[in-house]
Amino acid sequence: MIKLGKQTYQLEKDISVVTGLSLVGQKEGDGPLKRYFDFVEKDDKMGEKTFEKGERHMFVKAISSAIKKSGFSNEQIDLYVGGDLMNQLVSSNYTAEELEIPFLGLYNACATMTESLIIGSTFLETGGLNNVICATGSHFSTAERQYRYPLEFGNQRQSYAQWTVTGVGASVLSSVKKSKVKIRKFTVGKVTDFGICDIANMGAAMAPAAMETLNAFFKDTNTTQKDYDLIATGDLGKLGSDIFKDLMQEKGYDLETNYIDCGHMIYNIDQDTLQGGSGAGCSAVVLNSYILNKLNTGEFKNVLLISTGALMSTTVNQQGDSIPCIAHLVLLEVE
Amino acid sequence: MIKLGKQTYQLEKDISVVTGLSLVGQKEGDGPLKRYFDFVEKDDKMGEKTFEKGERHMFVKAISSAIKKSGFSNEQIDLYVGGDLMNQLVSSNYTAEELEIPFLGLYNACATMTESLIIGSTFLETGGLNNVICATGSHFSTAERQYRYPLEFGNQRQSYAQWTVTGVGASVLSSVKKSKVKIRKFTVGKVTDFGICDIANMGAAMAPAAMETLNAFFKDTNTTQKDYDLIATGDLGKLGSDIFKDLMQEKGYDLETNYIDCGHMIYNIDQDTLQGGSGAGCSAVVLNSYILNKLNTGEFKNVLLISTGALMSTTVNQQGDSIPCIAHLVLLEVE
Repeated sequence: MIKLGKQTYQLEKDISVVTGLSLVGQKEGDGPLKRYFDFVEKDDKMGEKTFEKGERHMFVKAISSAIKKSGFSNEQIDLYVGGDLMNQLVSSNYTAEELEIPFLGLYNACATMTESLIIGSTFLETGGLNNVICATGSHFSTAERQYRYPLEFGNQRQSYAQWTVTGVGASVLSSVKKSKVKIRKFTVGKVTDFGICDIANMGAAMAPAAMETLNAFFKDTNTTQKDYDLIATGDLGKLGSDIFKDLMQEKGYDLETNYIDCGHMIYNIDQDTLQGGSGAGCSAVVLNSYILNKLNTGEFKNVLLISTGALMSTTVNQQGDSIPCIAHLVLLEVE
Repeated sequence: MIKLGKQTYQLEKDISVVTGLSLVGQKEGDGPLKRYFDFVEKDDKMGEKTFEKGERHMFVKAISSAIKKSGFSNEQIDLYVGGDLMNQLVSSNYTAEELEIPFLGLYNACATMTESLIIGSTFLETGGLNNVICATGSHFSTAERQYRYPLEFGNQRQSYAQWTVTGVGASVLSSVKKSKVKIRKFTVGKVTDFGICDIANMGAAMAPAAMETLNAFFKDTNTTQKDYDLIATGDLGKLGSDIFKDLMQEKGYDLETNYIDCGHMIYNIDQDTLQGGSGAGCSAVVLNSYILNKLNTGEFKNVLLISTGALMSTTVNQQGDSIPCIAHLVLLEVE
């Protein structure tokens, strides 16, 4: 691995994204990306008694299916890296138990998908492993009641709020099996806090972290937005991505032509999600459906994915603290 | 990196533990290991208004001091990997913001210290980085009120309960600066659940995970307990380590002569901690004080550290779920 500048690394081994798999809830399945998803689940409890058990069920189904789709058995997957939004990563823990694959639990909120790709590809880069599964997800009903209000309370949503994506995305990375799409570079983000204390206003909180990471990547690699077919942020939503574009403009980068936000694009405007999607599942399912599809069909030759995480805690938020945020970037390229 | 057997990896690069630093509270400072700790803090709020802010203050002090002790500046540390027991890893997030070092957040409960050493040394193994800081910690008062009861409730503690260690341990790993102590091998654990539902009985819940990981390591490396000067588990406590020894005995390994549990050894019997210490800080501070000291003085030539994590969540515990557990192993050797 070669360090470029201050925060960016270039992989020397050929690391393929062999498989991407996406499982979503009905609301996401009704959105503009519906034809790209592998599974759309009508029942967001998956036949279980609680939303938490339903979320876990989604994880097990998505990750087992991803491994099957890649043509590997569970035994051939050396490592499972990932996490979720639940406290203590319960959905991932129970999934790792079910799969019986050695597990490293990660948490960087909604930036966990790119975090898992960074750690997974670094393990493969050492040459000691063949195949790694990277996966994250989230669930509207479990996240809402853990981070904000009881669902039964039926609170009015702020105009700047986002909607947690119900879905799980999983990518199988391999250094032995080849595919068209490769992970080439990544940038590890720094925690950035711009003083936003409102836990509904995550887009504004995360936009500066996304800007810091993309700016660091451009500086470290001596490239600009013009060198990439697509630049995608994780879940800034409409408001957050407008702020992000303004911040990038101030740095001299014009993102008007080749920029999307996974959160902004996952729902239709009439789906009443206000600023759009959020959650660890957001960039995970868009990467493992739309983005990988467009890379595999050759429509995009290279994509920068910047998952963005609002590392907020209800406990310290109630003690008056603002929301620290982080963003990790991964460069995906077609061979 | 070379894969040995099913779950174990051997590092090919020379990865030194340049510095270990331990910061603990007064109770830990009154225990048998007091002369090994770098800092003993009288005020477990560190002059702050809340325990959570106090914990964060401990993290910043311990990690900054570890970097200083290693002779590096913050800019020379390429990566910070670690976590804590607070939901969303708040203590680590705020510390990463303060230090301005690229950050990857990890969560495997009390197994996070060895998880961070595994990920830190894997990044160094690629040759792309020079120095990584690995750190975890915990705080009795923040963990108790997050995982169990409000402190003011003053509940009676179960006879099989443990006491969360207040403390932070930090290790600086380097592939450029040399020290006597090296990380040579590691085993990534699998999630193991033996059906314990009582959130006070963590030793019994974690013992099978520790057994699975140590057993996998012995099989993968074709060694036994006789090949190591010390085998240390993270925080099984007295009861948990008795169960662990029994389970290892059943597998044919007799741990009577060279085995300790960090949780069992950190408090004196008259300190009223019942089965002993627990928490992400437990194996972190014992590693970065007593164990590194004995390796550096040559008393131990090689040590197996198996941090053990009870991945319990109050939400799903209340829904009737048992506690999934994990244990990760690291082999430390003197050159």
